[in-house]
Amino acid sequence: MVVIMVIIPIRTSVQAEFVDITGLVKDEVKKNKWADGVIYIYIPHTTAAVTINENADPAVQADMLDALNKLVPVKGAYRHSEGNSDAHIKASLIGSSVVVIVESGNPVLGRWQGIFFCEFDGPRQREIYLKFSGT
Amino acid sequence: MVVIMVIIPIRTSVQAEFVDITGLVKDEVKKNKWADGVIYIYIPHTTAAVTINENADPAVQADMLDALNKLVPVKGAYRHSEGNSDAHIKASLIGSSVVVIVESGNPVLGRWQGIFFCEFDGPRQREIYLKFSGT
Amino acid sequence: MVVIMVIIPIRTSVQAEFVDITGLVKDEVKKNKWADGVIYIYIPHTTAAVTINENADPAVQADMLDALNKLVPVKGAYRHSEGNSDAHIKASLIGSSVVVIVESGNPVLGRWQGIFFCEFDGPRQREIYLKFSGT
Repeated sequence: MVVIMVIIPIRTSVQAEFVDITGLVKDEVKKNKWADGVIYIYIPHTTAAVTINENADPAVQADMLDALNKLVPVKGAYRHSEGNSDAHIKASLIGSSVVVIVESGNPVLGRWQGIFFCEFDGPRQREIYLKFSGT
Repeated sequence: MVVIMVIIPIRTSVQAEFVDITGLVKDEVKKNKWADGVIYIYIPHTTAAVTINENADPAVQADMLDALNKLVPVKGAYRHSEGNSDAHIKASLIGSSVVVIVESGNPVLGRWQGIFFCEFDGPRQREIYLKFSGT
Repeated sequence: MVVIMVIIPIRTSVQAEFVDITGLVKDEVKKNKWADGVIYIYIPHTTAAVTINENADPAVQADMLDALNKLVPVKGAYRHSEGNSDAHIKASLIGSSVVVIVESGNPVLGRWQGIFFCEFDGPRQREIYLKFSGT
């Protein structure tokens, strides 16, 4: 069974942040009765990304944003004239999609794992696409 | 339905470049009548990658190549003797595959998104593997 | 056909290393008679990752670990108090999953490609999840 895509709207509130979307994804799995398969979580934006990482200590996400800003500074000698080149580069370093396994009606995540929408050029109104393949 | 893998040959023309393959992928979706599911775009090389990012302003791809060269310089104190260590590292930072959702016979991409083959050790003859799962 | 998830235990032996798991994955494909489809290789940890890269010359993996340590040093002004912030950041740069195509009962990898479990906060007992979708 391949189901129609679900679109989750999300509003980010600052220029750069990691938003924990684990609960939103779990809600859709339950609501749509997805039981056994795989969810593709896809970001249709070019200055945002999605990753899976620790959601126990918020300091981890702060460290990640700091490290990304050191690697790819917000301001620099970029050619793209919109002033958000760093956001495009960070988006490709982190990636536009993740895959999450679903078993017995639940997303299978490691004990400390959460799913994060990564905003690199906010605040903005954004969308997350979910597609399920399975039974 | 899982279909046989499609192989797209591609010739890169310089040492490092981002080649927009969005049109090639759309052509295969149409030609093979893939209607509803997911395409896996897989790069079978260790010095190339695939990413999804902006395809409106080519300056974005130039900024991305510049940034990757700052992070992982072409020349450096590498151990691998073939002189392309940077290309291997960039390949793993960007990644060997992306997933694209297909609905109603069309790949679902965000408004500004394109799919890019990332050459880090060219020019070369390369291949892109496509696998579709759906109906 | 979507099959039940397979869990592969793995013991890493140093603080940071790339462990070649290509053989382990091939064994599971054969043992479970997965013929045609896609395998999702998922890491349920927040300080480890998975990537596909060259498995001919081990110097490539050493160069990759060196480069990652230059980009994200083990010690630094991090906020997370457990001393492994670098490992969390590296995990998100490399990614928590890869997709491998299966055709005629074999994983389809490029000539020089191997699948690597990336340990960034070892040594530890770890797990790798495999989920197959196909026939």
